[in-house]
Amino acid sequence: MIQAEIITIGDEILYGQITDTNTQWISSELDKIGIRTIRKSSVGDSEKAILEIFEESSKRAELVIVTGGLGPTKDDITKKTFCKYFNTELVINPQALADVTAFFKLRGRELSNLNKGQGEIPANATFIQNTMGTAPGMWFEQDEVVYISMPGVPFEMKGMMTLTLLPKLQEYFKTPSIFHKVIRTVGIGESYLAEMIEMWEDALPKHIKLAYLPSVGNVKLRLTGFGEDLKTLETQVEEQFQKILPTIQEYVYGFGNDELEEVVGRLLIKNKQTVSVAESCTGGYLGHQFTKVSGSSAYFIGGILSYDNAVKINQLSVKEETLNTYGAVSEKTVIEMSENVRKLMGTTFGLATSGTAGPNGGTFEKPVGTIWIAIASEKQTITKQLTLGGSREQNIHLTSINILNLLRKICL
Amino acid sequence: MIQAEIITIGDEILYGQITDTNTQWISSELDKIGIRTIRKSSVGDSEKAILEIFEESSKRAELVIVTGGLGPTKDDITKKTFCKYFNTELVINPQALADVTAFFKLRGRELSNLNKGQGEIPANATFIQNTMGTAPGMWFEQDEVVYISMPGVPFEMKGMMTLTLLPKLQEYFKTPSIFHKVIRTVGIGESYLAEMIEMWEDALPKHIKLAYLPSVGNVKLRLTGFGEDLKTLETQVEEQFQKILPTIQEYVYGFGNDELEEVVGRLLIKNKQTVSVAESCTGGYLGHQFTKVSGSSAYFIGGILSYDNAVKINQLSVKEETLNTYGAVSEKTVIEMSENVRKLMGTTFGLATSGTAGPNGGTFEKPVGTIWIAIASEKQTITKQLTLGGSREQNIHLTSINILNLLRKICL
Repeated sequence: MIQAEIITIGDEILYGQITDTNTQWISSELDKIGIRTIRKSSVGDSEKAILEIFEESSKRAELVIVTGGLGPTKDDITKKTFCKYFNTELVINPQALADVTAFFKLRGRELSNLNKGQGEIPANATFIQNTMGTAPGMWFEQDEVVYISMPGVPFEMKGMMTLTLLPKLQEYFKTPSIFHKVIRTVGIGESYLAEMIEMWEDALPKHIKLAYLPSVGNVKLRLTGFGEDLKTLETQVEEQFQKILPTIQEYVYGFGNDELEEVVGRLLIKNKQTVSVAESCTGGYLGHQFTKVSGSSAYFIGGILSYDNAVKINQLSVKEETLNTYGAVSEKTVIEMSENVRKLMGTTFGLATSGTAGPNGGTFEKPVGTIWIAIASEKQTITKQLTLGGSREQNIHLTSINILNLLRKICL
Repeated sequence: MIQAEIITIGDEILYGQITDTNTQWISSELDKIGIRTIRKSSVGDSEKAILEIFEESSKRAELVIVTGGLGPTKDDITKKTFCKYFNTELVINPQALADVTAFFKLRGRELSNLNKGQGEIPANATFIQNTMGTAPGMWFEQDEVVYISMPGVPFEMKGMMTLTLLPKLQEYFKTPSIFHKVIRTVGIGESYLAEMIEMWEDALPKHIKLAYLPSVGNVKLRLTGFGEDLKTLETQVEEQFQKILPTIQEYVYGFGNDELEEVVGRLLIKNKQTVSVAESCTGGYLGHQFTKVSGSSAYFIGGILSYDNAVKINQLSVKEETLNTYGAVSEKTVIEMSENVRKLMGTTFGLATSGTAGPNGGTFEKPVGTIWIAIASEKQTITKQLTLGGSREQNIHLTSINILNLLRKICL
């Protein structure tokens, strides 16, 4: 397998001022095309440190991927350091300069001298277009090692990798055939899932590997087949999946890059159904989960953020009596919220959330993490109580995942 | 300054299956006690790779911090590899064994042979207690380099660092004084800010360093002073900040760890003001920015997600004529949305957003990224048109930052 090293440049990552999410994403993308990451390193904005790590990495790996240090300011020294490393100079790249000029023109802003510098790259570099920003990407080859330099801004880096670099790497390294399939599950923890599929996992053929990819509220299972013929691999991986699918079916919400909110959106479109939300503890987060999906206006009509009880009463017609007797965090309240928002907005479904996201506001009877959710439709209103134990952020996120998954099951 | 390297051991991080949050946390804690991280590395569960990185790191740094690979299973080889590196053997540590035995007893579980192994550490190691789990921490000294080994589970590692290791490191290394101050800006790009403060930056004394920490919509400026006396440093850093503050004042929204939505929340509390939102293109994201702050119920009353025009008309009383004549993405529409939601919810301010977040739905006259925002108060309604060029996610985020910052300025 082709071996790669990933280098992150920047004091802000080295000193822990910002989180590095790039290297995880890059290594996971490389993994998918059969390139193995053998080391990740992070160094500061220091010429000496950068030169040293270039030297070391190029001795161990055939591919050295560098992110960061490409901004227009003085502490961004990656380009200059590449020049020193390759013993060359910065030259204006017409395409890079045209791109940065167009970028500013499109935004009605003038090109400053500092930003004009973004049009320069080392003389031995191949320019890699950045469709999302002004820092150019670069591809170098020397002594049978490929060096790639990308900006550290995650969406700029991802755009470059996806559009240009991953295909280019596959072609350049003639990487072996590899086939992935990802099953996405919700509502079951990693260790339970692992126990459930243990026998199947142990019986997998040697050239097919399983990886667990857990995140808050979700576990993804990825099967990867390595071999010569892609068609054969695809069939073999698919066969293995078909063996295990019935066992875990109830937790499976999608495959590949499917996000839960997209899966729900597609079901709503297919069924010609619409949705509205009445949010208390999620405070807009649930609406955002729907509306961050492009095209969601086909099924997401709107919602009421009834954070204050007055809004529950005035805009959602929740009975004062209900709030006084059972409290805002109660089954009765979410039932009224969901049914009333559904009627108000004339949608197929009305979704409601109410709970104590924390860290404050818990009581002995209703501790932090006590959340009620409800989904109303013409026929019935379904409710569920959640008992969550995470941070405020996690509790809001998990509430949203739970109600989306409940809606998914209803829509199936 | 004492120089440290941080090493993460484990295939799951190397191949991008899980996110490494440990190294960020560790380097940021070291930074606070004046220990400088000079490199971070991540290697797999391979004896060769681990020995190599131990060798390299100990040549560059006086402190080598290692996390991961301490679990009881076969693929966790950190302890054995330390033995090989130090040419020693695993021995039972009475304290470690007592701790792991007690851990299982407390949970009513029997100690398996696999877990009994957790009581062993290399003969030259000082045992560091793990109050949160079963993998022991270790402290080694050799040739004037300190090596620390900790489990990879974040809360176990954090417990060990906070309770034992950070105080021990401060004492051992007699660390110098260091003082940080962070200014947070919004509404100006990194390069414009850099040009604006260039002369000041160039004139900074050598022992005070400036770093730019950009993220989408924000740029943080961090000044770090190094020296002997903390009081003197604090005064010196503060003096430098006071010199530049008037120049950039209009962009400064906070200091240190202040988030924009928290700053706005504090202003609203101080002024005894309340807020409601009428969201079209942000679809709940703006409400979430307010409500993700603990205690936001003091000023955030609620909102209407008027994604569909029917909701704008029925729940927000936007005139059909306005929508027909000017369209949903127009100044007139956001004026009515903001004024009407304010009246509906009886708040000091009513905030409204309407625009085309993309990637689809743009027209020649109103391309993707055309966004109108408005803030209504008793006295007046302020509007602003944004022209954004990012992804859907970014356009939503930037719209939210823009309206929060506008509200901040009004509240000052």
